[in-house]
Amino acid sequence: MSENRTDLSQIGEFGLIDHLTKNLEAKQASTLLGVGDDAAVIDISKDDALLISTDMLIEGIHFNLMYMPLKHLGYKSVAVNVSDICAMNGKAEQITVSLAVSSRFPIEALEELYEGINAACEFYGVDLVGGDTTSSLSGLTISITAVGRAKKSEITYRSGAKEFDLLVVTGDLGAAYMGLQVLEREKEVFKANPEIQPDLDGHDYIIERQLKPEARKDVIGFLKELEVIPTSMIDISDGLASEILHLCKSSKVGCHIYDEKIPIDAKTSMIAMDFNLDPSTCALNGGEDYELLFTIKQEDFDKIKGNPHMTIIGHMTNEQDGIYYVDKNGSAVTLNAQGWGHFKD
Amino acid sequence: MSENRTDLSQIGEFGLIDHLTKNLEAKQASTLLGVGDDAAVIDISKDDALLISTDMLIEGIHFNLMYMPLKHLGYKSVAVNVSDICAMNGKAEQITVSLAVSSRFPIEALEELYEGINAACEFYGVDLVGGDTTSSLSGLTISITAVGRAKKSEITYRSGAKEFDLLVVTGDLGAAYMGLQVLEREKEVFKANPEIQPDLDGHDYIIERQLKPEARKDVIGFLKELEVIPTSMIDISDGLASEILHLCKSSKVGCHIYDEKIPIDAKTSMIAMDFNLDPSTCALNGGEDYELLFTIKQEDFDKIKGNPHMTIIGHMTNEQDGIYYVDKNGSAVTLNAQGWGHFKD
Repeated sequence: MSENRTDLSQIGEFGLIDHLTKNLEAKQASTLLGVGDDAAVIDISKDDALLISTDMLIEGIHFNLMYMPLKHLGYKSVAVNVSDICAMNGKAEQITVSLAVSSRFPIEALEELYEGINAACEFYGVDLVGGDTTSSLSGLTISITAVGRAKKSEITYRSGAKEFDLLVVTGDLGAAYMGLQVLEREKEVFKANPEIQPDLDGHDYIIERQLKPEARKDVIGFLKELEVIPTSMIDISDGLASEILHLCKSSKVGCHIYDEKIPIDAKTSMIAMDFNLDPSTCALNGGEDYELLFTIKQEDFDKIKGNPHMTIIGHMTNEQDGIYYVDKNGSAVTLNAQGWGHFKD
Repeated sequence: MSENRTDLSQIGEFGLIDHLTKNLEAKQASTLLGVGDDAAVIDISKDDALLISTDMLIEGIHFNLMYMPLKHLGYKSVAVNVSDICAMNGKAEQITVSLAVSSRFPIEALEELYEGINAACEFYGVDLVGGDTTSSLSGLTISITAVGRAKKSEITYRSGAKEFDLLVVTGDLGAAYMGLQVLEREKEVFKANPEIQPDLDGHDYIIERQLKPEARKDVIGFLKELEVIPTSMIDISDGLASEILHLCKSSKVGCHIYDEKIPIDAKTSMIAMDFNLDPSTCALNGGEDYELLFTIKQEDFDKIKGNPHMTIIGHMTNEQDGIYYVDKNGSAVTLNAQGWGHFKD
């Protein structure tokens, strides 16, 4: 180790990835795209490409087994990887699952985890084709790689958005974050007094959004039926604001998004206000919604308009125009992202 | 979690993988092979297939940063995955690298790790195309997935060995294990008295075999030149004995291997005897050699004979005949494997 020491917290997760991979150069003819999108793209035939995406989930960082049942954790681990393949407009077909587990976990616990993994594989039509299982000194680590397939002409990159394109988001936002807040609150209550049963009544929707998010494979199907190929796409794992900034940076465009257009479920808004949080802030920075964010050409407006699964929340502008969030009063403010910032904790 | 509790140590690593994946059924037409070999096989065109392999390396289990320089660790992480693709008779073309790191690691440490990763990518002609980087509560975890390519007609499975086939191993065995013993010894000396410098003189070969193993990509090239397609193949990560048992089980054959044929470098033998270890035991159970173990048809004998990179160590028999190790005295004993048994620690 050299004597210089730069803390990871100084650079952040995205900064670190950029820093470590900045000099990478693809040398294999089959590498169509490397680092920098939701999945890598590998050439396999004249018309088709394979998509490879990978995610690592760490106990104590990405999940807390105090309120995350192992079966849900298994399901979610698969769903978030399928979501990355969806974000390329592809179809996930295979996954590998690697586990590191401490001796604190009995076999029955891993069986529960695999029940969830298998349920998600079944639901998304994905085969579990490999992995690695090893012991760890502490905690549970799950590393999943998803393999997907797409027609080259239909792959949606983060870099394809153009000025005047419309910005569309699926489903509703902020619910997963509010689910986490409720679970954390009940955890603290439980720790203070284990006799008190958690009060999760009426919070089914937001808790399910946190514990059992779904990849929007259905939306990929709807887009095909509508004959819409997005000009760019990303999935919302870190929060709407963060993903908009990614799309704009990759596509070299600006953006205007409108607060009043952001889809937020009434239950999310209510519980956010209970917590004295602004629902829009939860939607912008909450993360883990695993909805899709994409841009379409203006000419596709009529195909999307009124679709219950998709909401137009803004439009892309010239890069020089900047990235703006138009608030409830009609004031445009520069959009910032908070993201998860694991390294900043 | 259910109330039953079965310790992982009761079932072991291979038992656990078998147990968790026993009911898996491939449903995607593109899944040619799932769990159970060095890599999964995915259909991509009439003639070609993609190979997917994944490995997870955990600090304190698979490596000790007290004597494993980060650059070597990066190199080795890539090499062991390339080795899995070689074991399918394929060519590795892409990898993804996921890291979980605690705040104890400064950016400079990760740069060293990536130097090794990049050096290995360069050497093996592999593109780094993706990954995930996150924080961990403790220690370093590396999860690598390798993507390779092969002609379907040339893929070597573990299951293809036939009675009368010859069993061949590349390079020499046991050196990586003895390298580890020397490193562990010097670590203990250092812990007892940090003033004493480690005495690694004359141990370069075995230490390099432990710290910087190479995948036998060269052998895959030699086999192509010799026009030999092995009938079955596996790489030696857990030890010769363990891998022979895997090949025999998958191929439903028996085997006779001969102690006197096992290739062991003179330096490995000498240091083994210094440690009061039987060199053959080190070769059989030491592991981490990342050599290739394969079977060939008898008719290919002349092509392999005398090749400095390959040694014929036995032959396959009928399954009912069992799996035997013929010792120095000519006595045949049933072959057992010790393997790493992480869960048994």
